[in-house]
Amino acid sequence: MTGEFKKRLEELSGITDRRLEDYMNSVLSGTGEQRNVAEAMEYSLSAGGKRIRPVLTMEFCRVCGEDTETALPAACALEMIHTFSLIHDDLPCMDDDDMRRGKPSCHIAFGEPTALLAGDALLNLAYETVCGGNLSAEVKIALIAELTKATGVNGMIGGQEIDTAFGGRMTESILLNMYSMKTGALLRAACKMGCIAAGAGSEKINAAELYADKLGLAFQIIDDILDVTGDEKLLGKPVGSDSGNEKATFVSLNGIENSRKTAKILTDEALNALAAFENTDFLKELTLFLLKREY
Amino acid sequence: MTGEFKKRLEELSGITDRRLEDYMNSVLSGTGEQRNVAEAMEYSLSAGGKRIRPVLTMEFCRVCGEDTETALPAACALEMIHTFSLIHDDLPCMDDDDMRRGKPSCHIAFGEPTALLAGDALLNLAYETVCGGNLSAEVKIALIAELTKATGVNGMIGGQEIDTAFGGRMTESILLNMYSMKTGALLRAACKMGCIAAGAGSEKINAAELYADKLGLAFQIIDDILDVTGDEKLLGKPVGSDSGNEKATFVSLNGIENSRKTAKILTDEALNALAAFENTDFLKELTLFLLKREY
Repeated sequence: MTGEFKKRLEELSGITDRRLEDYMNSVLSGTGEQRNVAEAMEYSLSAGGKRIRPVLTMEFCRVCGEDTETALPAACALEMIHTFSLIHDDLPCMDDDDMRRGKPSCHIAFGEPTALLAGDALLNLAYETVCGGNLSAEVKIALIAELTKATGVNGMIGGQEIDTAFGGRMTESILLNMYSMKTGALLRAACKMGCIAAGAGSEKINAAELYADKLGLAFQIIDDILDVTGDEKLLGKPVGSDSGNEKATFVSLNGIENSRKTAKILTDEALNALAAFENTDFLKELTLFLLKREY
Repeated sequence: MTGEFKKRLEELSGITDRRLEDYMNSVLSGTGEQRNVAEAMEYSLSAGGKRIRPVLTMEFCRVCGEDTETALPAACALEMIHTFSLIHDDLPCMDDDDMRRGKPSCHIAFGEPTALLAGDALLNLAYETVCGGNLSAEVKIALIAELTKATGVNGMIGGQEIDTAFGGRMTESILLNMYSMKTGALLRAACKMGCIAAGAGSEKINAAELYADKLGLAFQIIDDILDVTGDEKLLGKPVGSDSGNEKATFVSLNGIENSRKTAKILTDEALNALAAFENTDFLKELTLFLLKREY
């Protein structure tokens, strides 16, 4: 990891943090007796995380020739959708996780009703956020269309349904479909929305989608490998948390060695997809950073 | 209730039902293993209800001089938001209601995880729906901005937070604020979005908002009166369901007689607000129909 890369990554995630704070201050300032739900939104939104989706959105905007900040409202909307999904996934009726990013989950800190509403409100705020800003109405509608598709029944929400419903009965094809929807869809949206915000044409948008597809699957497979090989520092969560509850993973279905080979091929394919853009040094380093998990 | 009014009301709710069915068929046709969540959405969306919000949206569009169906995607989006809120409100961690519109609640029929996701997906589908259709991008963005405001922390979701959090500690000012947010905000959006879809100016949009404000509060107060006077047929739900759990209502704070007087004044104010439009015979009859509960 070069110093320049690290500096730029911190800069982009810092820009995201500050803009998210601005949005939440604006929401909080308008509240009365319902303030608690806004505080729950802010609690989860400011809990950290690497802001990978916003960073991708802003970088794809930049490599399409526009200013980073042109894509900032869209980038923040993606982080709101991601955070909404974490809050609802942690609820007792879903994964029942008491901790998230080293802090009590939203429903532990605020109670289940307020956490449920905070998730709903973040999903809603994502669309309010894309509606704001200075882009043309046509571009905003294209961004919202992309975000609704990525989030909905055939995207992230559908992937969560499959994850919840199939558990131990997972086949490889269902698992790949679940990965593609549950985590892949929002990554694809992050990359594509950067291009759309920059007014890029379909060739670049398609290349961004291909990149995100490969990146997302590689990331998920490496997550499965780390869950077995047991490097908690690289994994960022307790080792064995997937194998422990008997969920099928790419590794349990294909073995460690095949999984490593597949992850390597996917990483190369992701890097190759960046050839459609210029000035991709940062994106290349980000790809390797995400897939080697050196953080 | 005149025969002509009844026929038109059935026609408008029928148009809504059919278009909602079209949207859901399109969603269902794209699903694989996640089909269950789409079926849960359809289950709740097709459970009936009076389609009051869509009818208001289409009628306000018509009295602003545009075709009824111009506002149909917006009208359907409002029904999706309304249905999402019912699914989440019925969940065990919220009101814990097993029945809704005479059928098992969504989480009883499909389980809690799928019901949670179905609610999320309907909120998301509402925005996808407004994005579609033939209106200009500018008008769509204006519609989405209105809908996000009505749904979010300072609208319906915030109202639900107050309802959940304050229970017995309710004062009149908090109660009125809660009514205005929990049910009023979406009614205001329904009326305003009809005008916006028709390209109406701010004078008409403001008159629609005033109408909706008065209608919403009158409706809520009459609901509170019926909950005490005990006409289950007019109320449409078990009598005493509010007073039984010791929630403060307009009637418990002001008494029956004052509540009746207030409802009468609000009804007149709603009817007066319609003076800003032409051809309002149907809307006038709808107002009296809604506030006398002759159904």
